[in-house]
Amino acid sequence: MAAHHHTFTVSTAGRGTQSITAEVQSAVRAAGRDVGLCTVFVHHTSCSLIINENADPDVQRDLDAFLTRLVPDGDALYTHTAEGPDDMSAHVRSVLTATSLCIPVVGGRCDLGTWQGVFLFEHRAAPHRRKVSVTVVG
Amino acid sequence: MAAHHHTFTVSTAGRGTQSITAEVQSAVRAAGRDVGLCTVFVHHTSCSLIINENADPDVQRDLDAFLTRLVPDGDALYTHTAEGPDDMSAHVRSVLTATSLCIPVVGGRCDLGTWQGVFLFEHRAAPHRRKVSVTVVG
Amino acid sequence: MAAHHHTFTVSTAGRGTQSITAEVQSAVRAAGRDVGLCTVFVHHTSCSLIINENADPDVQRDLDAFLTRLVPDGDALYTHTAEGPDDMSAHVRSVLTATSLCIPVVGGRCDLGTWQGVFLFEHRAAPHRRKVSVTVVG
Repeated sequence: MAAHHHTFTVSTAGRGTQSITAEVQSAVRAAGRDVGLCTVFVHHTSCSLIINENADPDVQRDLDAFLTRLVPDGDALYTHTAEGPDDMSAHVRSVLTATSLCIPVVGGRCDLGTWQGVFLFEHRAAPHRRKVSVTVVG
Repeated sequence: MAAHHHTFTVSTAGRGTQSITAEVQSAVRAAGRDVGLCTVFVHHTSCSLIINENADPDVQRDLDAFLTRLVPDGDALYTHTAEGPDDMSAHVRSVLTATSLCIPVVGGRCDLGTWQGVFLFEHRAAPHRRKVSVTVVG
Repeated sequence: MAAHHHTFTVSTAGRGTQSITAEVQSAVRAAGRDVGLCTVFVHHTSCSLIINENADPDVQRDLDAFLTRLVPDGDALYTHTAEGPDDMSAHVRSVLTATSLCIPVVGGRCDLGTWQGVFLFEHRAAPHRRKVSVTVVG
């Protein structure tokens, strides 16, 4: 059976995470495979994807606070500064997290653990529109 | 041919890595595909997966020492502290490493490099039971 | 349809990134699938793969400078030192970035974003020859 491909857009509110679990599960349901493999891909280099705890929003805030301290905006180290102090730090944060995720499909849905959610992580300060693809094979 | 899905459980001894290469190769052998794609997924947000050197155990110890220094337990930055000083740091360590891995299948087995092993990385201080899935497609 | 598997070798010039986007797109074209999934895998533990900005080479230089500061060579923390001061730091840098990437295939090619390139990231100081696999399924 051919691969099933679905694309959607996420409007972000600036730096921080937002859940895309429902959008990913919806794309997997539409693929109509009982068992297979789902991959999620984001088509940008200044935001990324993570799987992280879906229960306490403090986890997302703490993660962002950690990365903001680890990867300072406007670091004197950077030469790529034309787009502002949060541009190069966004590229670094993207590389330290993930551009693609793979999740098994079992029983027609992504077999995430109880506490796992899929999040788009916007690393730029300003709101952006971000393209995400879900591909289901198997 | 449909995807092949296999799940197993790993009992960890607390923070640190343990090899799951044998379990992954066994699941791939059972899938019976000559060429394809194997993905490994861990269903938790406070442990993760890595591919790293399989020869000198000092590599695993040094990696854990590096992450313990980079991501301090009980950091005053964290507000998500209800489950103890190693809880939020475990989530950060999980995001900085990987929840899913993809490995090519060639000749009926994962085509890992000579020095590559697949490891489950427990980030919590206490022992846990962790669910891992291997999905083979192609 | 069976998976399509292709392997190529990259000669690196020592620490830093080099684009492998053309090699990956060529392997995907040879696979002859309209829609599917491409995975890229590197068979080593002291180099890695990233997707990052393909336009301004300063982005690659800044990323390497950031990692060189974050993961110091010859760190007194390390016990795995037999192969030189850049050996254990290379393993850490490998784990903080990625050994495998997944990219959707649409219209017979990797559907990368406008600014996305695929790069091999050499973490050792000396030049190396590195094996990369591209697997296309779906």
